Amino acid sequence: MDPVLRNPQRRRVLAGGAGALAAAGLAAAGTARAAEGAAAPAAAAAPQAKPLPAYAAWKDADSLIVHSANTIETRRSAYGDGVITPLRQLYVRNNLPPPDASVLNDRDAWEVRIEGVKNPRTLRLGELKTLGVATLATVLQCSGNGRGFFPHKPSGTLWQVGAAGCVMWSGIPVRLLAEQLGGVADGLEYMTGTGGETIPPGIDPATIMVERSVPRQAMEDALLAWEMNGEPLTLAHGGPLRLVVPGYNGVNNVKYLKRLAFTAAQSPAKIQQSSYRIAPLDAKPGPDFPSAWAMDPKSWITSPGADGKPVPAGRVLVKGVAFGGVNAVKRVDVSVDGGKTWRQAELVGPDLGRYAWRQFALAVDLPAGSHVLASRVEDSEGKVQSEHRLENLRGYVNSSWRDHALAVTAA
Amino acid sequence: MDPVLRNPQRRRVLAGGAGALAAAGLAAAGTARAAEGAAAPAAAAAPQAKPLPAYAAWKDADSLIVHSANTIETRRSAYGDGVITPLRQLYVRNNLPPPDASVLNDRDAWEVRIEGVKNPRTLRLGELKTLGVATLATVLQCSGNGRGFFPHKPSGTLWQVGAAGCVMWSGIPVRLLAEQLGGVADGLEYMTGTGGETIPPGIDPATIMVERSVPRQAMEDALLAWEMNGEPLTLAHGGPLRLVVPGYNGVNNVKYLKRLAFTAAQSPAKIQQSSYRIAPLDAKPGPDFPSAWAMDPKSWITSPGADGKPVPAGRVLVKGVAFGGVNAVKRVDVSVDGGKTWRQAELVGPDLGRYAWRQFALAVDLPAGSHVLASRVEDSEGKVQSEHRLENLRGYVNSSWRDHALAVTAA
Repeated sequence: MDPVLRNPQRRRVLAGGAGALAAAGLAAAGTARAAEGAAAPAAAAAPQAKPLPAYAAWKDADSLIVHSANTIETRRSAYGDGVITPLRQLYVRNNLPPPDASVLNDRDAWEVRIEGVKNPRTLRLGELKTLGVATLATVLQCSGNGRGFFPHKPSGTLWQVGAAGCVMWSGIPVRLLAEQLGGVADGLEYMTGTGGETIPPGIDPATIMVERSVPRQAMEDALLAWEMNGEPLTLAHGGPLRLVVPGYNGVNNVKYLKRLAFTAAQSPAKIQQSSYRIAPLDAKPGPDFPSAWAMDPKSWITSPGADGKPVPAGRVLVKGVAFGGVNAVKRVDVSVDGGKTWRQAELVGPDLGRYAWRQFALAVDLPAGSHVLASRVEDSEGKVQSEHRLENLRGYVNSSWRDHALAVTAA
Repeated sequence: MDPVLRNPQRRRVLAGGAGALAAAGLAAAGTARAAEGAAAPAAAAAPQAKPLPAYAAWKDADSLIVHSANTIETRRSAYGDGVITPLRQLYVRNNLPPPDASVLNDRDAWEVRIEGVKNPRTLRLGELKTLGVATLATVLQCSGNGRGFFPHKPSGTLWQVGAAGCVMWSGIPVRLLAEQLGGVADGLEYMTGTGGETIPPGIDPATIMVERSVPRQAMEDALLAWEMNGEPLTLAHGGPLRLVVPGYNGVNNVKYLKRLAFTAAQSPAKIQQSSYRIAPLDAKPGPDFPSAWAMDPKSWITSPGADGKPVPAGRVLVKGVAFGGVNAVKRVDVSVDGGKTWRQAELVGPDLGRYAWRQFALAVDLPAGSHVLASRVEDSEGKVQSEHRLENLRGYVNSSWRDHALAVTAA
């Protein structure tokens, strides 16, 4: 890439701590905490950044914090003024190592099995492409985004704001595909996607396989996607084919999709039954607790001061991103005093639909001194971003505006 | 970048002929004619593709036809299903070699002079960024796009369809900036942008400088942009700062902008006075002929068969892109019989505003045999894409749907 695209000063070492990779490299429990510009207290910075893994080596290292080979975060300071997150800057989170890159040698030969419809079939991607196409922008966000702000330091990657982006998908609408296969069979309440990762021999597939179920109605706007931001889907992001469930947390957007089934029950996989369950701190997570499905309204400031440097005192534009999960953004308010007073921000740029995020800006005068910048979104249904995080054992779905506030110094 | 992102079979040598570069490397008069999938008769393919120049080395060579160091075209087959053209695939056309890459070392220090307002000023880019921000999608198209279809083989690069893309800009609205400087002074009918390229000593600047004037009303939606597709503007595309004139031909979107002036007359530069003038074949181009300003409605097919390979007979989606210049797209019709009969296509994906292009798709059954695929757009004002090119000496503004038809073989 353009060697001068990024200011070299940006290459700062901010991700600390060594990610603890479980045996066989299957788990991705990074323990790094990136201190970049966060209002929350920061752990000491480690002396060296981790390199990008081979399958994501094409990304822009300066924009990213590498927690582990399977968990890579966008720096808060890297989000630009455009609404779509460039692929080079987009976060990566894999539950398993990706399949071998050879699966992309002949993309159109990739096969996906469709079940739970009147006429179940296995289709090649090349055939899917003749059946229909749609393009849709969605927020893609790991359900653990913001975990780094939980005081009990949950297990899992301690993401700050950057396990999220807004991207443009192209693929075939699931609804259209199901119609062409006779429609969904009766009595099937869930849409279940199965990933095509390799399960090492000797391991019970149910313990590690990526198979997620979401309520059937989520199919209405779902896609089987083969492109992201106008490019064939990369291995890092689930190519050749990925299930996109708009408005739902990232884990439900199953990569390397080899099976899409309408099912009577949720998947028996551990990732469905006990992982990604929002359970109290003292509970054993299990199927009785809510699953990390639809996202909540959330926003955060991206500028100024997200790079940790002092902001020139005087007029600045306070900018950030805001989304409503499955609902559109209605308004965004911004505070420069840590939430004591608020002013409505202007929404910037094109509206890419209810599942995309909106960028916002507010012109303020920042006198010399310390300031805490915060933002708060309200969605089209009147739901307002919460002030406090929902405490939960694994540190999922943190949308607290207070946790996401940004302490800056104007000079 | 991801080494397996693109199918290696795509790396075909289709651009032929040696570009005739004038002395000092200043002119960019490529003579190559890319034969890829065009209905028009094709010149013989040359044995070797040219390499990407250093300032564009980060682009995806497989998606591009390199005519010369300053003229690089997107392959018709590279346009994907997403509405925004990825930067790695976007065409490049420079009238002069770009400034030294060191101008990007400190982007915020770049200075632009604003004249023809009540309070003229020189502003640093860092200051511009505090004054306002907007994001806007526009079609960026070289006024010579489609020149390769003119039978008289005009001088200049013989582009086919690929000197065009749809990109997202972020920057400050010119209207807002002018207001903050007291407004445009009276009696100034043009908005004139001056590029920051280096003029070699001993050359009269007026003969080669990039300075373009457009009617003053074009300022209404114009931007001074520092980002493209969410990334800081690259050197290849005019970074650190570029004038964006939505709906206008590419040349008016002045790169490396060092001066923006409201002026009583058009620039005296050759590029304004005689180049980019739509003059008859037997005329000497000059200021009495129309300038390549606002774009006309135009569309073309991008799939299937744009890679020159046979299309599997049976159901296919015929897809392409369509735009209305300064107006929105109203409808697109598609023909699979070279324009004898037409069917309305479906518009695909989000509407990014009147200056963006729309993608379209139509499901058809293609029996084995030869077919000529064509598309025709109608804009919101009822103006329909023309059937025939406007013959002109330098081969500008070709929007003929017939020239842009695509001959394919189904098998």
